[in-house]
Amino acid sequence: MFSKRILCTQLSAHIGSEVSLAGWLQQVRQVGRQLAFWIVRDRSGWTQVVVSGQLAQSAPPLESVVAVTGQAVASRSLQGYELQATNVQVITTAAELPFELHHGEIKAGDEQVFNHRVLSLRHNRNQAIFRVKAVALQAYRAYLSRAGFLEVQTPKIVATGTEGGAELFPVQYFNRPAYLAQSPQFYKQMLVAAGFERVFEVGPVFRAESHDTSRHTNEFTSLDLEMGFINSVDTLMELETELLKHMFTTVRQECARELELLGANLPELDHIPRISLAEAQAILKQEHGHLSPQGNLDPAGEKLLCQYAQQEWGSPLVFVTDYPTAVRPFYTRTHCDTPELTHSFDLLFRGLEITTGGLRIHKHEQLVQALRERNLEPEAYRFYLQAFTHGAPPHGGFAIGLERLTARMLELPNVRQATLFPRDRQRLVP
Amino acid sequence: MFSKRILCTQLSAHIGSEVSLAGWLQQVRQVGRQLAFWIVRDRSGWTQVVVSGQLAQSAPPLESVVAVTGQAVASRSLQGYELQATNVQVITTAAELPFELHHGEIKAGDEQVFNHRVLSLRHNRNQAIFRVKAVALQAYRAYLSRAGFLEVQTPKIVATGTEGGAELFPVQYFNRPAYLAQSPQFYKQMLVAAGFERVFEVGPVFRAESHDTSRHTNEFTSLDLEMGFINSVDTLMELETELLKHMFTTVRQECARELELLGANLPELDHIPRISLAEAQAILKQEHGHLSPQGNLDPAGEKLLCQYAQQEWGSPLVFVTDYPTAVRPFYTRTHCDTPELTHSFDLLFRGLEITTGGLRIHKHEQLVQALRERNLEPEAYRFYLQAFTHGAPPHGGFAIGLERLTARMLELPNVRQATLFPRDRQRLVP
Repeated sequence: MFSKRILCTQLSAHIGSEVSLAGWLQQVRQVGRQLAFWIVRDRSGWTQVVVSGQLAQSAPPLESVVAVTGQAVASRSLQGYELQATNVQVITTAAELPFELHHGEIKAGDEQVFNHRVLSLRHNRNQAIFRVKAVALQAYRAYLSRAGFLEVQTPKIVATGTEGGAELFPVQYFNRPAYLAQSPQFYKQMLVAAGFERVFEVGPVFRAESHDTSRHTNEFTSLDLEMGFINSVDTLMELETELLKHMFTTVRQECARELELLGANLPELDHIPRISLAEAQAILKQEHGHLSPQGNLDPAGEKLLCQYAQQEWGSPLVFVTDYPTAVRPFYTRTHCDTPELTHSFDLLFRGLEITTGGLRIHKHEQLVQALRERNLEPEAYRFYLQAFTHGAPPHGGFAIGLERLTARMLELPNVRQATLFPRDRQRLVP
Repeated sequence: MFSKRILCTQLSAHIGSEVSLAGWLQQVRQVGRQLAFWIVRDRSGWTQVVVSGQLAQSAPPLESVVAVTGQAVASRSLQGYELQATNVQVITTAAELPFELHHGEIKAGDEQVFNHRVLSLRHNRNQAIFRVKAVALQAYRAYLSRAGFLEVQTPKIVATGTEGGAELFPVQYFNRPAYLAQSPQFYKQMLVAAGFERVFEVGPVFRAESHDTSRHTNEFTSLDLEMGFINSVDTLMELETELLKHMFTTVRQECARELELLGANLPELDHIPRISLAEAQAILKQEHGHLSPQGNLDPAGEKLLCQYAQQEWGSPLVFVTDYPTAVRPFYTRTHCDTPELTHSFDLLFRGLEITTGGLRIHKHEQLVQALRERNLEPEAYRFYLQAFTHGAPPHGGFAIGLERLTARMLELPNVRQATLFPRDRQRLVP
């Protein structure tokens, strides 16, 4: 039935021929009993179908799946061509829609949109969002593969969290307690030490945070990387700059239509400014009278700092460096001369933190000491510590939240809009 | 310190120059007090370093991380070049090794190898396995992206299993019970219905099976795809044939060195033979006197059938089709004329099932009926059934187990050898 099917966007190449389309019935404009104009949509886009005579006397409900055979003709329609139907087959009949889907924005509240996610994803804005996300992801992997990074898969069922047990989802693993991995942090470091030197992973991470904000979900896609034989966070920040530049350029090239539809404007990346956390806090205080929490930025501060970076340096992205040791994980490398500060950074993009990264401790005895200083029990981290007993090189890395990055690229107000099926405190289905 | 580092395999391009290497000390051959030959290894391979005079008087323990500066020279060494060290720095000193690592095979049992996974992964055979796996994965995605498939990420924390609750790992999701996804089956079908038509996903799946065999782990990487607007399993089997052909060709091109090291021989794929399960069972009975379980093949049968396919048709792969409805999941489409048989298939490769696939039911009322016939409660599948209320096209798909595929490509005896950090009944660390 579908063996001769062409896509809607291929119709213009078949003017004068008989062709078959199949897709969803998006719109019906009835002009008397003998004539109707249908809009049929498939994964490539949509086209107009002219239905006349007997065929025009009844149309299936909107969003039904139809197969149409007919003559592709040039016309005065919007697209300059259309299909004159000679045969119409209804493949699957749709029930009544819970909301109006295709006239401008979806006419429904957020809850409705996510309750009926399969339906709302059919909206062309949503189709565009997930195409951009997929292309950005491809570009991420392509850049790193060329730079000698190996793609890896590390376990998501783990015995120990990276941060000592907070924000972990418990899993019953046969007769043993286990957890869902908050991040592949330990494993990516272990793989550097295993001789791969440069690894990256694209995978789900799980955070049992009870936040209910526009920037948190409890399961998201983490773009992780880690590299050995480096001694400076600058190397990591340079890598991330080049990596994002490649991702943005690829999306601009391959998703021009989607970016236009979404009204999105990706920044031209050249240099991303870098300032220390202390400087950032001083700027926020001086310029905006904004007081930051001890050793960190709050969401309002992140927004203000990005506005400042845009105004002062013409960049919607800014690296914030040198976070205090007290607010970073135990494995973060500290400055030799000022051990209360770490070789670490966050990357902010249009008001939101999209990356955390830094250098790591690579010596076994220093890791043990760092654990003890935080009252964490080295025994619980035995499998991780063991990786540092037989020669680990100096190393570091970072992680990008894919949904946060996508949301900021496209200036979506909520990270859920860049998630096919979001998971949060309230939502476990669909 | 590493800013001027070159890789071992780049040394030959720098003959006559001063260069720096950094990596792991793999071997030390001491020739008197004033001369030693070191093998230094990095992610690219290894090279010989000549250490003389004062520097030769002590070497760090094997597998320590070292940085060496010196003169790259042509030599009569195995590689035809070597580094004459002028400076040596020990970056990280390794503890004593638990087993001999680099002389032929690793001198340790399986448990030791996996207990010390970071160390054992440094063996060149293991490095090669995971490079092949990564390249095969890249080829999988490249082929599907070109064929119009969209890469997606679906949730791993789910409310309902695809098979009604068996073999699920329970997760405590805030105050609600949840499970780890056994497969992205429901979600990939929902995304076909959401208008993406063709989707694929690379992600972890979780099976609480208590099997302890060479072909099972409890967490593995599933290469899933699903496509709409098809009416025949033949379309799926053709797609998988072309997909695997592309993956094998790419691996042959990009991993020649790894395949040689592993003594692996990838089949030239042309046509993969297809036989029905009933035919397969008859062959096994007639040719080998082997009796199969009702409506299925057992592991011994799978091995014998692949031997038969190799002898009779010159193919180490064989599709087995038309499984009984009773042994396939509720969503599998059945033959119109013989409803006790399904439009489904498995793909066997060198004695092991690496794929399950088939057409799916796309009509809401048929899905409800199929659930009822298996005494499953439609209410528990509400979010899934809802996807079929507003026009789902006919569709189907399949999944390839990445570790199983890699293991069969390389003829590894155990799927764990194609898993960086395996998870099984016994093993939750490292």
